Formats: sequence, structure tokens, C-alpha cells
Amino acid sequence: MAEQAEIGLIGLGTMGRNLALNIAEKGHPLAVFNRTVARTEEFMGEAGALARRITPAETLEDFVVALQSPRRIILLVPAGQPVDDQIEALKPLLDAGDLIIDGGNSDWRDTNRRVADAAPILHMGLGVSGGAKGAREGPSMMAGGPDAAYAMVAPVLESIAADFDGVPCVAHLGPGGAGHYIKMVHNGIEYADMQMIAEVYGLLRDGLGMAAHEMAPIFARWNEGVLQSYLIEITAKIAATADPDTGQPMLDVIADRAGQKGTGRWTVMDAQERGAPLPAVEAAVMARVLSSRYEDRASAEALFGAGPTSLPRDALTETMMEGALIAGKVLAYAQGFELMAAASDGEDWAIPLPRVAEIWRAGCIIRSAMLDDMASALAEASDRALIMAPHFAGLLARHHGALRQTVSLATAHGIAVPALSSALNFFDMMRTVRGTANMLQAQRDFFGQHGFERLDRPDESGLHGPWAG
Amino acid sequence: MAEQAEIGLIGLGTMGRNLALNIAEKGHPLAVFNRTVARTEEFMGEAGALARRITPAETLEDFVVALQSPRRIILLVPAGQPVDDQIEALKPLLDAGDLIIDGGNSDWRDTNRRVADAAPILHMGLGVSGGAKGAREGPSMMAGGPDAAYAMVAPVLESIAADFDGVPCVAHLGPGGAGHYIKMVHNGIEYADMQMIAEVYGLLRDGLGMAAHEMAPIFARWNEGVLQSYLIEITAKIAATADPDTGQPMLDVIADRAGQKGTGRWTVMDAQERGAPLPAVEAAVMARVLSSRYEDRASAEALFGAGPTSLPRDALTETMMEGALIAGKVLAYAQGFELMAAASDGEDWAIPLPRVAEIWRAGCIIRSAMLDDMASALAEASDRALIMAPHFAGLLARHHGALRQTVSLATAHGIAVPALSSALNFFDMMRTVRGTANMLQAQRDFFGQHGFERLDRPDESGLHGPWAG
Repeated sequence: MAEQAEIGLIGLGTMGRNLALNIAEKGHPLAVFNRTVARTEEFMGEAGALARRITPAETLEDFVVALQSPRRIILLVPAGQPVDDQIEALKPLLDAGDLIIDGGNSDWRDTNRRVADAAPILHMGLGVSGGAKGAREGPSMMAGGPDAAYAMVAPVLESIAADFDGVPCVAHLGPGGAGHYIKMVHNGIEYADMQMIAEVYGLLRDGLGMAAHEMAPIFARWNEGVLQSYLIEITAKIAATADPDTGQPMLDVIADRAGQKGTGRWTVMDAQERGAPLPAVEAAVMARVLSSRYEDRASAEALFGAGPTSLPRDALTETMMEGALIAGKVLAYAQGFELMAAASDGEDWAIPLPRVAEIWRAGCIIRSAMLDDMASALAEASDRALIMAPHFAGLLARHHGALRQTVSLATAHGIAVPALSSALNFFDMMRTVRGTANMLQAQRDFFGQHGFERLDRPDESGLHGPWAG
Repeated sequence: MAEQAEIGLIGLGTMGRNLALNIAEKGHPLAVFNRTVARTEEFMGEAGALARRITPAETLEDFVVALQSPRRIILLVPAGQPVDDQIEALKPLLDAGDLIIDGGNSDWRDTNRRVADAAPILHMGLGVSGGAKGAREGPSMMAGGPDAAYAMVAPVLESIAADFDGVPCVAHLGPGGAGHYIKMVHNGIEYADMQMIAEVYGLLRDGLGMAAHEMAPIFARWNEGVLQSYLIEITAKIAATADPDTGQPMLDVIADRAGQKGTGRWTVMDAQERGAPLPAVEAAVMARVLSSRYEDRASAEALFGAGPTSLPRDALTETMMEGALIAGKVLAYAQGFELMAAASDGEDWAIPLPRVAEIWRAGCIIRSAMLDDMASALAEASDRALIMAPHFAGLLARHHGALRQTVSLATAHGIAVPALSSALNFFDMMRTVRGTANMLQAQRDFFGQHGFERLDRPDESGLHGPWAG
């Protein structure tokens, strides 16, 4: 009888295959199952030398028998009903204390429900970031569920995770759907980060008339500084890439219609439910929506004239745009972390925010040098407000002027910068103790007798103006 | 035996009392019921001469008996469970074909469900706008439900509605929850409209250093032109109002912490679900959220220095700000109407959008001269895109420059203008055929092999860059 497998994996799509190879490579005996047996056979062929650590199962019964007790089973099946179906199919074959780990992109509310309904087995939701390559070489993983569940798989997860200076990029971040929730916010932040880069690309292209290959060294230089990150790194590479077919820059042949899988939108809706401000992600989602409306944009450009006009070459410097991206990025991430803090309070999850920043330092799409500083800042900040933490307050103090000049110039020249602009407006509202909502309160009281507070009598509320009654 | 009542009303809160008096005044014999009988008695006392047309009922049984058959009953009870409870209590007392009209602020999904589950009686959702005063003097009302239901109450509703040049501001706008949906979007637009006015108030106060009483005539002048609207009218009055206690301008004593009841937020979430862009409402909701965080704003201002700085007196003219408000308002309303078009398609409601604009011309909070032009434009526009309709395209062409200059100056001087700014970014993205989402698509393909389309081979999709594989 062969050695029993330490862990099982169901679902041999791209993510599942890569994660399985990663697990086997790290020395863990593994059983795999896929609904279509042909795919399992194909996978075993691809596994090469690693195949000796992998037990392929043709039936769910064989798969379950191949696992050590208590059983640990990672699902990588499409989110939604397929996850529930797979759990239903497995449950009669499992024993109390066995563990199902959902490694897909499930809605965190579904994971909450599945964790609650799992008994007598255990359920854990695991957000996996880093794409196919991350799954194979070391992803960043965000776990949510019972403590006991995480303890059962911590050694495997820690050995397959990305590594940042010896620290594995995986953590148990809370109960229930906390892991999938944090993965969702990760993706929301990713939307904002990408959109801000795209906006600066627009300034370089339309404002300064630069060719893609001229931009590549700028992004590469930025990648040596505060902005060092995977996204800036690949942006430099993308800008430098020529189309093998036409010889033109790749950027010039790719259509400007962006897709989305919904996690950005989910993050925005969640922030609305919690009353947390998330303007940079909102702007990024809007930008993707509008990008897909090519016909409308063509009609509007024909009607109103082309939007962007050239800037004077020296009006907008490389340093200014770098500062704009730094300030914009700090603000977008601060909004994301604040949302997680709100969710942590609202759901009673006690999410360790510094750990979130730590495990995002490698393996995931938004990995960056700045996240290392965020981990430290969040560990020190008692109130968890990133923009008030000394390091980031310093970055904002130094660079909000550059963000301001950049947005002001872009606006004047018709170059859309919705995410940068919304981040700046958020900053300007946050740092203005005397805002303009007194006008809103006066209007609401005028037309609806909603009542207001007074600055000079802070202990009273529900007051009315002389227009009432 | 007294004459039987043409219609019944349950719930004698502010809205219910005012609507009941309005109904009685228009000559309709009416029965009323309130859970607390004392309130019914109090109301009858207040009704004065109108009391002769009103039958007060002490029990639900007496109330139902007092009504003509088929019975028509308007509920004005708090949204949510109380509505369901009231329906449950009524149902055993009613006959097939009787009608319950929910005149509260119900979630449109609840109304969808109640309409579907109503048989053998009928259910209708009625959005009522205009506040307490509107309910008494003539509200704008948005009905959703079966045709047969609307036909049963059309004469009463038309007689109590606000009147615009002889046209009553009430309409049957679709099945199920369509009426409550449209009321929700109305409130979302109201948020954006108010926020833009508050932003211009900020420019006048912080940018130009004007006192409230100096602004009043500016708003009053604007109310004579394209911006003529209830909200601009009351803004002028508010700016001119002095606090009876201190003699200071009311605006200077009211705290800048705005409340919200959730409909703005619901509208934003709904737009996200439908993939419809609604940036001006998003910005307005964010502004209310941030306004409530006084302590955070005080800390941030202490840390970063006060935000707004004075503008040169002649940099920002009255005409420029008027143009900014005109362009911003057109864009915000266009977004709202587009959302309703998306909902109409998505829910198969066939909402007559020109009728929506028509019944918003009087009675509701956002009533304005511009809505009259919108009604005409929507009636003529085959594709329902307001910004492309000649009249509004003309307004945008004339005034987007003013919006651009205003936002650019405000941004440079640290005066937050989130709603105006988001509206402009929306416009600039919409009128730019060559956007920057090619960068997003390149990044998504680079890290996740998501694939892209090419400009030079529009028939192919799912293509990859040479960085893949």
C-alpha cells in the first residue's frame, strides 16, 4: 500500500495544476481528483518527476481513501454553486474533523455560511493571489476559518507560499469568510493601483506626446524608488515591448477596452454597505466600465471634439508624476486598509492588519516596497489610519503638491485622471476641518426638517433653521 | 350609514397626515387608521373643516368596512418589516381585487416581491417625493405595479399630485418595484445636485472669501437662468438667512456633518450591480461620509495644514461657476437617467423615461427648469443618452470649459470638489475614443493571461502579448 497523501486537491484547472505542482515540489505527498479523468491523466503527464509524489484518483471515493486522517482537501473549483456541490459530494465520504479548504475566488459571505454549516467537518476559505505563476512559484495566501483548521494545514501552506525575507506570505487572518474578504479588497486595491498607472500613461502619451518606448525607462526608474512594485515593473516591460507581428509598440495595438471579473465592483459595494470611503476603487471601476463603451465614446468624441490636448513639454515633469503616483497610491491603499478595519470591526473578525500588509509583500499582484513600510506603520499605528502614520504622512506631505499639480494640469487639458483626482479630493476633504456639509444640512433641514447640529452648541442636535415651520 | 370612503390611509406620521389632508381637500372621502388611536384623534382635531370627509377608524376591521369596494388602501408606515406586518394584518380582511398601495420608502426589491405575492389582492409601490410640504400641497409620485392597480387609483393620485402646466406629476412607470426604484434614483440624483451646490459654496467661501449674505444674490441670479430649480432657490434663501439667536449667518453656525438615510448609498450599490457609471452620486455619498468624521478631519488638518487657500479674486468668475454647475448638473442627471435605462432593460420594466422627467418637473426636491428640457430631449432621443441629445450636448459644449477651469483651479487651491471633478472625468473619458485601458489590458494579460483585443484585428479576441507563456 502506497504512502497516504498529506493533502488532497480537487480541480485541475490552471490554478489547481500549478498549486498541485508547487505542493508536490515542496515535498508533500498529494492526491488529486478532477471531474474529467482525462484532465487528471494529462496533468500526471505534465508533472514529470513530481508525479511520484502525486496519487491520481479516478473517483472521489479513491481520492478520499488516499488521504491521511484527518483529511485535508483543497478545492480549486469555480466559485458559487460548484463549491457547494463539491462539498455535498465529499461530506458523506469524510469523517468528523476532516477539513475542506476552498482556494477559489468565493464570495466571502458564502464562505461565512460554509464555515458555519461545516460541522462535523471543518471548512476554511483561502484567498490565493498571484495568478497562475504565483500558484506555481509561491502565491500570497489569505486564510479565514477556525483556528483548528488553519493549524492543520499551516506547514503545507507555509512551505508553498511566496517568501519575503524568510517570512512566508500566508496567514490566518480571521474566522469565517475573512480570508476571502481580504482577497476581495486586495483586488479592489489592485484596480486602483493599475488605474492610476494607466492615468499617468495617458499623461505621458497624450499630454507629453511620448512614444511607448520613451516611457519604458521612466517607469523603470520609478521602479528603483518609492514606487518599486510588481505593477510598475511590468509596466516598464510592457511599454518596452514591441508587437512581433507589426513591429509597433504592443501598447499601440492593444484595444482600450478593459475587462473585469467583478471583484472590484464587489469591493465598492461592500464599502458602500459599511459606509467606508473608497473613491479610488470606485473611479477605477468606472474607468473599466467606460472603457468598454467604445461606440459611445466614438460618438461623443465626434460630437464634442477630441478630449486630450498637449501640455507644454516642461509643465509636467517626471518628478511631478512620480510624486502624484506616490501620493495617489498611499491614499488608495489607506482607503483599502480602512475598509478592512471597518469590516474587521463590523464582522468581529479581529483582522491583524499589519499581517495583511506583510503577506502582500511577495507573491501577489500588488506586491511592493511600500507594503513593507505599511506593515511597520500599521503595527505602530494604534488607530490604524495609514495616512496619519509618520512615514506615510511624510510621503503625503512631500507629494500631495505634485498630485495636485498633476491633477490640475490634466483637468485643464482634458486628460481624464479619475482615480488620481478622486484620491486627491478625498485627501482635501479629510484635511479640511471646516467642510461644506453645513450647506447640505441647511438644505435638508429646509426641505425635509431633518435637523442639524450647531458649531456653537455641540451638545444639542435636531435643531432647525428659522425657515422651518 | 355614512358614505363609504373612496380610499383608506394607514399610518398618520408626518407624511401620512399631510397626504390624508391633501386627499380630503381634493374632495375624496377618506378613512384613516393608526395603530395608536390617540394619534388618530389628534389628527382629526387638526383636520378642521376637512374632518367631515374623513372617517377615523379605531380598529382595522372598522377601517376596512368603511371603504368602498374594491378597496384602495395607502400605507404610510416605516419601510421594511412594518410594511409586511401591516399587509399580513390586512389580508384576511380584504377581498380579491382590493388594492394595497405602499407609499413609503420601501426597497424596490421588497416591492417586487410584494407585488408578486399579493394575489388575490393587488399591490402597488408608490414613491412619494417632496417631503412633508410636498405631501400636503402636491407631491411628485412614481407608481409601480400592475396596470389594473394603477387604474384603480389614478383619479385620486392625479388630483393630489403636484401640477406642472396642467400635467399632474404622477405616473405609472412600470411593473413591480419600478416606482420605488425610480424614487431611489431620484434621491441619488438629489445627493449629487446638492453636493455640487455645496462645492460651489466652498469655492465662494474659501476660494473667494465671500460671506454668506454676499452669495445669496449670486444663487438668486442663477435661479433666473438655466439653473432655475428648487434647490438653487432654497440655497439663495439659506445663504440670506441670519441666525435669530446670534445674528450670524445660519450657514456659519450649522455644523458641517451631513446625515444620510441610505438611498444615495443604495443607488450607488445598484449602479455597481448593473455596471452603470454613477460617479457624481458616488462622490456625493463619499462627501457625506467624510463630513461625519470630524475628529479625523481635525487631526489631518493639524498634521497637513489647512486645505483651502484663497484664489485670486478674478480667477474664478460668477459665470464660470454657473457654467460649472450647469455642466456638472447635466452630467449627474445623465448618469441617473442612464442608470434607470439600464434598470429598465435589466428588469424588463419598459420605464418611459420622458415621463419620469415630466413628473419630476414639480412637487419633488429636484424639480427644475432643466427637467422640462430633459423630458423633451428624452422623448426625442432614440438611444436615451442625454449628453448626446442636441439641447444638452449644446449645454455641455458651451459649459464644459467652465467646469474644467473651475475644477482645475479648485484642485490647485486645495478646495475639494469631488462631485464636480468626478462628473468632469466622466465627461473626459466618454469623449475620448482612444483611452488608456490598453494599459490595463496589457497588465492583466501580463500577470494573468487574461487576453486582449487588438485595434488592427477587431474580429479576434483573447490575444496575448509576447510576454505570455
